[in-house]
Amino acid sequence: MTEQTDALAAIEKHRVRIDEIDDELVALLNERAACSLAIRALKPAAGMTLYDPAREGRIFERITACSDGTLYDEGLHEIYETLLRVMKENPTA
Amino acid sequence: MTEQTDALAAIEKHRVRIDEIDDELVALLNERAACSLAIRALKPAAGMTLYDPAREGRIFERITACSDGTLYDEGLHEIYETLLRVMKENPTA
Repeated sequence: MTEQTDALAAIEKHRVRIDEIDDELVALLNERAACSLAIRALKPAAGMTLYDPAREGRIFERITACSDGTLYDEGLHEIYETLLRVMKENPTA
Repeated sequence: MTEQTDALAAIEKHRVRIDEIDDELVALLNERAACSLAIRALKPAAGMTLYDPAREGRIFERITACSDGTLYDEGLHEIYETLLRVMKENPTA
């Protein structure tokens, strides 16, 4: 059973790291939501429309360029499509 | 036009921070994908099934508990539903 024990221990180690990553992801998603809410509040005074497809296009270009490709681009884009939609729908406090 | 200029400058500042956050998010998502791929490869030797709903349930509990709520919980869960699905579908290198 040594191989099985080793595999279980290795899985547990990776899961501990995933939990740490999730803590960091959640903190960053909350900070990103705060920035989005601030921008949404400023847009009327700036004379900007709430939806800015050019900005979204630049976001997708940036994330594709800075990804190392471990997560395939289609998957990364799917996550960001959900993320950007959710940020727009996020109610103000 | 001072109010408009101020609002545009403030929006630009928030967008610079969002770009920094996106760089960090993409790096963490790639690292998380690498952990997921490693776990997937180890599961047969560990005698574990590939899909583990109890683990997913614990992930949702953890992210809800550590979120400060700026991003509403439903939105956070939607992002994680996409994230977990995409991690499972991610092809091995």
